[in-house]
Amino acid sequence: MKCTVCKAPAVIDIRRHNANFCAEHFLRLCRDQVVKAIKDFTMIEPSDRVLVAVSGGKDSLAVWDILVELGYQADGLYLGLGIGDYSDASGEMARAFAHDRGWKLLEVDLPTEHGFDIPTGAKAARRVPCSACGLSKRHLFDEAARTGGYDVLVTGHNLDDEAAVLFGNVLHWQTDYLGRQLPVLPARPGFPRKVKPLVRLGEREMAAYCVLRGIDYIVEECPMAAGNRHLGYKDALNAIEAVSPGTKHDFYFGFLARASELFTPAVAAEQELLQVCARCGAPTPGELCAFCRLVDRATDREPVPVSLGRRPG
Amino acid sequence: MKCTVCKAPAVIDIRRHNANFCAEHFLRLCRDQVVKAIKDFTMIEPSDRVLVAVSGGKDSLAVWDILVELGYQADGLYLGLGIGDYSDASGEMARAFAHDRGWKLLEVDLPTEHGFDIPTGAKAARRVPCSACGLSKRHLFDEAARTGGYDVLVTGHNLDDEAAVLFGNVLHWQTDYLGRQLPVLPARPGFPRKVKPLVRLGEREMAAYCVLRGIDYIVEECPMAAGNRHLGYKDALNAIEAVSPGTKHDFYFGFLARASELFTPAVAAEQELLQVCARCGAPTPGELCAFCRLVDRATDREPVPVSLGRRPG
Repeated sequence: MKCTVCKAPAVIDIRRHNANFCAEHFLRLCRDQVVKAIKDFTMIEPSDRVLVAVSGGKDSLAVWDILVELGYQADGLYLGLGIGDYSDASGEMARAFAHDRGWKLLEVDLPTEHGFDIPTGAKAARRVPCSACGLSKRHLFDEAARTGGYDVLVTGHNLDDEAAVLFGNVLHWQTDYLGRQLPVLPARPGFPRKVKPLVRLGEREMAAYCVLRGIDYIVEECPMAAGNRHLGYKDALNAIEAVSPGTKHDFYFGFLARASELFTPAVAAEQELLQVCARCGAPTPGELCAFCRLVDRATDREPVPVSLGRRPG
Repeated sequence: MKCTVCKAPAVIDIRRHNANFCAEHFLRLCRDQVVKAIKDFTMIEPSDRVLVAVSGGKDSLAVWDILVELGYQADGLYLGLGIGDYSDASGEMARAFAHDRGWKLLEVDLPTEHGFDIPTGAKAARRVPCSACGLSKRHLFDEAARTGGYDVLVTGHNLDDEAAVLFGNVLHWQTDYLGRQLPVLPARPGFPRKVKPLVRLGEREMAAYCVLRGIDYIVEECPMAAGNRHLGYKDALNAIEAVSPGTKHDFYFGFLARASELFTPAVAAEQELLQVCARCGAPTPGELCAFCRLVDRATDREPVPVSLGRRPG
């Protein structure tokens, strides 16, 4: 197997590109794909102050690494979500990565600052953990970007993530989510632009990127996500991709090119009706936003005991 | 396992209904689901003359059986497509079914009437066999219904079929197909209404229906379809359905309820531009329709030799 670019021995094949790459040209491919995504969707301006949401996993560390390589002014943001050992280990990964490079990492700790962790919050609000976690993260991302004066918030969602989310939204025809599933969400008053520069790169490529760049990342999936539907959607798409390489790419980018705009008018109409959360200022259809209601539910009552690998203390 | 209706021993469970059924109540369920589909989508009027496209497989024989049970005036139509042993066996099944009940079965033989079979036609037109077959069947269905004076053409597409077709159309965002994927296509001048009364019933239910009604059907899949993408889409959806029963139903009916109409305007605009085929009168964007062009290609040249299980003679 030889590099399609230089004919040196290849270290990875990418079937949907029908190409193989040596380490050097694979790393260049990853950067080029990020450059193309940023350009095609007008994600980041050179003068923007960029905040990268960093979980300690391969995708977020890789995107931070690539953005700095590309010359962007990018700081990191790590959220402590109180998910037992998993949070401890992922925080250490993020801190070590930033420390080794001398890059700035902001930290926000949900239990310290808001008095609850994700397992407790999810139980109190009777939400599935991934739902309570997602809405908490969105809120804390927004808040950190606003208070830090950042223009853009970057997340490490890759092509596999976006294709699986799209598949779930399509399977249930969640037309409101379909109208919002874009690689760029524009800034709104007090809220940063949100962008996903890895949408042209897959999970396997991001793992290879980290290995080749010597980036140490947390390999485990979040224990609260185990067995969730999203992972089942990934498996189903992987089975199809194995037979027809490129299907995931066509599915996601075909949606953006030919279908996404059909779903946006309903969302725009909905957003017209949003008010401002009486407590935190986030857009909300009610008086209090979903995060502030989650805080109330999670802290009004005694913390619910959770096991899930948490150590006492 | 007991029947959810009468507590007698059950013969089948249907997980997406979270229910079990004895033979009597399962057969009633099948009929009720067909009645509901016909009513919800205004498929068939009691006075309609109905033509059922019969392949000899479980779905088409079952839907013919159910429609006659429900009191509709339904004749059958068998198309000989010249797919070797498979066509011979499926034709025998269809004829035996009709003969045993004294029901009227029309027959059209593609090789006899148009001078080519599907394997030859597909090779000559450089189409995949399922594509050449689909367009030939649509043409021959229309023609038989028109010359026979039928109001409605019924096909046996079940929920699994429609969900898999929808999945394929969504994976590639074939927005024109999405605008036309409806359980009822209205009549146009010279063409019958086309309806799919089995959209509320799955593949497994149709097999069980046939077994319980003593209907002998051809079990084999068409040999030309083996390994096609459609079967891969069915597998992927089955894996998700196994974890979350009801997903296929929600996917298909959610599409009809909340998304289908978003795709119809583009199709309507396209149909405005259709002309009439100079040879056969079918709607077409060009001068000759796809079927008449297929006939030309398949018969202008020497028949291409095909293997695929055909016996000489």
